[in-house]
Amino acid sequence: MTEPSATENGIEVYLQPIGRRILIPPGQNLLDAAREAGVELMSLCGGEGLCDSCHIRVVEGELSPITQAERNFFSETELQDGHRLACQAIPLNNVKIDVPSQSLTTPQRLQLEGIEAEVDLNPPVIGVDVHVTPPTLEDLRSDATRLEDAIQEVDSLPMIGHRTLRVLPHILRENEWSLRAVLRESEVVGFLPSETKLYGLAVDVGTTKLAAYLVDIAQGETVAKIGDMNPQIAYGEDVVSRIAYVNKHADGGHTLQSKLIEVLNGMMGDLCSQAGVTQDQILEVVVVGNTVMHHLFAGFPVRQLGESPYVPVLTEPVEIQAAYLDLKVAPGAYVYLPPNIAGYVGADHVAMLISTRVWETDQTTLAVDIGTNTEITLATGGRLLSCSCASGPAFEGAHIRDGMRAAPGAIERVQFLNGEAHLQTIGNIPPVGICGSGILDAVAGMLTEGLLDQRGVLQGDDPRFLKVDDKGAFILSPAAQNGHDRDILVTRSDVNEIQLAKGAIRTGIDILLMEGGIPLDSVDRLIIAGAFGTYIDIESAINVSMFPDLPRDRFEQVGNAAGAGARDLLISTTLRQKAEEIARKVEYVELTTHPEFTRSYMERLYFNQ
Amino acid sequence: MTEPSATENGIEVYLQPIGRRILIPPGQNLLDAAREAGVELMSLCGGEGLCDSCHIRVVEGELSPITQAERNFFSETELQDGHRLACQAIPLNNVKIDVPSQSLTTPQRLQLEGIEAEVDLNPPVIGVDVHVTPPTLEDLRSDATRLEDAIQEVDSLPMIGHRTLRVLPHILRENEWSLRAVLRESEVVGFLPSETKLYGLAVDVGTTKLAAYLVDIAQGETVAKIGDMNPQIAYGEDVVSRIAYVNKHADGGHTLQSKLIEVLNGMMGDLCSQAGVTQDQILEVVVVGNTVMHHLFAGFPVRQLGESPYVPVLTEPVEIQAAYLDLKVAPGAYVYLPPNIAGYVGADHVAMLISTRVWETDQTTLAVDIGTNTEITLATGGRLLSCSCASGPAFEGAHIRDGMRAAPGAIERVQFLNGEAHLQTIGNIPPVGICGSGILDAVAGMLTEGLLDQRGVLQGDDPRFLKVDDKGAFILSPAAQNGHDRDILVTRSDVNEIQLAKGAIRTGIDILLMEGGIPLDSVDRLIIAGAFGTYIDIESAINVSMFPDLPRDRFEQVGNAAGAGARDLLISTTLRQKAEEIARKVEYVELTTHPEFTRSYMERLYFNQ
Repeated sequence: MTEPSATENGIEVYLQPIGRRILIPPGQNLLDAAREAGVELMSLCGGEGLCDSCHIRVVEGELSPITQAERNFFSETELQDGHRLACQAIPLNNVKIDVPSQSLTTPQRLQLEGIEAEVDLNPPVIGVDVHVTPPTLEDLRSDATRLEDAIQEVDSLPMIGHRTLRVLPHILRENEWSLRAVLRESEVVGFLPSETKLYGLAVDVGTTKLAAYLVDIAQGETVAKIGDMNPQIAYGEDVVSRIAYVNKHADGGHTLQSKLIEVLNGMMGDLCSQAGVTQDQILEVVVVGNTVMHHLFAGFPVRQLGESPYVPVLTEPVEIQAAYLDLKVAPGAYVYLPPNIAGYVGADHVAMLISTRVWETDQTTLAVDIGTNTEITLATGGRLLSCSCASGPAFEGAHIRDGMRAAPGAIERVQFLNGEAHLQTIGNIPPVGICGSGILDAVAGMLTEGLLDQRGVLQGDDPRFLKVDDKGAFILSPAAQNGHDRDILVTRSDVNEIQLAKGAIRTGIDILLMEGGIPLDSVDRLIIAGAFGTYIDIESAINVSMFPDLPRDRFEQVGNAAGAGARDLLISTTLRQKAEEIARKVEYVELTTHPEFTRSYMERLYFNQ
Repeated sequence: MTEPSATENGIEVYLQPIGRRILIPPGQNLLDAAREAGVELMSLCGGEGLCDSCHIRVVEGELSPITQAERNFFSETELQDGHRLACQAIPLNNVKIDVPSQSLTTPQRLQLEGIEAEVDLNPPVIGVDVHVTPPTLEDLRSDATRLEDAIQEVDSLPMIGHRTLRVLPHILRENEWSLRAVLRESEVVGFLPSETKLYGLAVDVGTTKLAAYLVDIAQGETVAKIGDMNPQIAYGEDVVSRIAYVNKHADGGHTLQSKLIEVLNGMMGDLCSQAGVTQDQILEVVVVGNTVMHHLFAGFPVRQLGESPYVPVLTEPVEIQAAYLDLKVAPGAYVYLPPNIAGYVGADHVAMLISTRVWETDQTTLAVDIGTNTEITLATGGRLLSCSCASGPAFEGAHIRDGMRAAPGAIERVQFLNGEAHLQTIGNIPPVGICGSGILDAVAGMLTEGLLDQRGVLQGDDPRFLKVDDKGAFILSPAAQNGHDRDILVTRSDVNEIQLAKGAIRTGIDILLMEGGIPLDSVDRLIIAGAFGTYIDIESAINVSMFPDLPRDRFEQVGNAAGAGARDLLISTTLRQKAEEIARKVEYVELTTHPEFTRSYMERLYFNQ
């Protein structure tokens, strides 16, 4: 985490969650500053403080005093919590600002699509329509007993959870003693008017992004999907800084949990309006995430995940009542969290293995989920070997001088044609910064063009080279062309960050293959999942030797495979059993203590196959 | 419920929960008014508004504007919620005031004692001390798995609830990998340092009063007990008015539930300090109450309990996680609620049947729990017949002109010696009003003295008679003698209230005996439970023909038998099974539709055996 401090060149404004750092002159307000950097904030009143559309929150650093305009829109508690209007607030020193997605004119790109394989439909909840005999002074059975009796006539004797019982008297009388009881094994988890459709919610909680899918649980069809940013970003960019936040703040775990739940409830509300469904119709939830996200969501402690030997509280699957987590779904619904494999190979990787069906293939397969931590599984000859590589946040645009997340204006593709860099940005607008796939392309291109050597050192004296802080840099987008009065650069440090990231991933692949006794060219499939993995150019990834130089048709980019796995686990209890089998079966390979790790990593920092 | 309205004689102040109504002149503040009526409020600063010891809350009616002194002690929210200082607040019209027990110099008398029969000790939770192998990079089992493995070595493989898991990583590391796991059947519900003692909490939630017992659950010993008022009184004196409150207010059920839980948490805190125990050591809770209290505590709807045919949501026993109810005990602890029998024969009656061992006697036994509703069970020849009688609140001092609850200054005993009424008050202070046992004595004495006839009409022209609102009344305590400038009377209406109450109870006894085919004199035992039942004079109760004229040694006054039953159920799963058997076995007799009810009731309104 960068601590804010004054710099000579001006005041640094770090815009979260899009991950853009900008330098502004003293006295400039945040609305203007963001706009000049190409980050378009909403501003319905034109920056007059007459509306709250440019609502932001200061996370670190000092802003100018609160104005009356801001007092009109925010409560005392909100003001204390750092809520401000961008048009009113002027940074007094380096600041970190949280920009909620509603305040952005164009949202960040979120990866929602993923493969949808055939699923053996076998949902955990089913609806049973019954008619119940109303009570009389001669038949004084309780509401619960008479319902249980009615269900027993068509199914086995159920148990009714006490949260569910709370709505029973009303719904029985409102619907003239006919209703649909929702059974989850032998437990009644919900009541609805007869023949009401049942839905489930699948959620992928990424460290950065959230994806949620509303699924018709009887049909197995996704009826709506939505993405949003993980609001925990305001408390730490990566899992390590979130653990640090929780360790430092007594109620930190609860804060991170409730911020996340609040956003998930909002997403659920949107999904329900999209599909014309009520939240009471959501009877089951599946949440996947890495082990830290999993623990924070469930309210488990995370301190021990930040300390060697990084053990999770538990690896078994968890079922929690949704109401206990304040998720606004049917009051008796459960949340299923798939098993974790280890402290740094979480339920999201299990979900990815489920959706890619890696476990049922005879082919030797590498499944790679690239993120701040990259999880890799090698499936070969009935074995599953998994590891986690600390690939770092470079591919999320962090730790890169002009890096940013995959939001509008991000350079996402770089091609060198006749020695000249051709850029493509998200939204086809003038470039604002570089996102993960862009920086990978840029570095790969610079290698091919001979602008970089294998150690990552700038070669020759290309006119596009300049010095920044005494180190070399390459002008990717000159100020004159991008209209922002500021060159967009690829620095020597940026190249080093990519070396660290790709080196970690490649070392993971090497060691897994070594442990599996598999020669490189015996890999039949290399599956790449995750948002970054979807957008990268395979050629570039091979160029920088992040991936082995296999025939290109062996690579598959599968999108949000964790989200797809969450959907699979929502509609199939058979796959839940499979997930538990997988988690038990996986041989976890700890890289950091592996005898080959250091040697391999040192070698893989260089750009050579 | 009496709506406040101005009266000619002054302003009426109704003090809750002690149930005292007083008339005061306009302009008098609440502190002075209460004192003149004999209700001693705390006042450390002498009524100067310099402390908040005379803290009260206005429930209905208008008081003088809030003073600066009050702003010093209460937040805006508290002020809006009616919190005031009695020394600052002057009633502007008839008001209903809630006096918290801390604001009273002497607390109301609460019935805590009850029989303690031998119990087959068989607690639902047990402690297992284990040592767990710490994790290393070679042994990466999760915290949960390694604990489960350790427990399995000494017991069977347990399941760890997710609330409990939350504290596991910390307690394992804090205690160097040794701990006491608390098992509830196969579920781990808590973790404590090794060899820590386990406690349980038994609670009797009465409509008016609360009693709580802290029990060493392995030894079966009560280590501390405490009583308090049910804070729901501020929302309705009896179950009918509480149901009405919930029906009228969207969030009413939640309000009543959370007020109750808040007071229970306070009581628990006090019990723990008394006994030097931490709340984390409370691993099991048993709560008993009538069906309405049961439903409100558990958060079940009560509307249908107020409408014929008065069916409960459920009659089966309920186990709820304490954390879900916000009870501040060990995070994984459960609350056990014994079964209900019917809408008006609740879990408290089942608990009473448990503690009095009525189910294991060969003797024909009547067990009577007197309250606003009186539940009666007849045990005879292996059968259990139960009914509920609407005896009304007269025995709580309500609906009686000078009635009050059993608080200091209440006339609790009346004896006529040589024609003169001798009074005994609680706390031996000048009489303030009459509580239930006092009014029963007074009416019984007036009957014996020939001051009343069998229909309840005042006889003769005793000099102590006077007219109130055109109806006769008897001066029990003349103003000149009690020092309050106000006669304490027994009016014709008061006598009628006692007739209604005792008539209902006696009709219940008659019909149960009829249904059981038992002649009156075959009743071997008549057990009287409850606070009122503990303090009444059996002779007076027989005199007014509330109870049959059986030999006196057949009567037993057992105190808080429901509370005692709750304790029994806390330490014995055998008795829990017995409670469930009893609830299934009871033959519920609905009085209101019984063919003999009207005839019997009309007859039993009179004072004759």
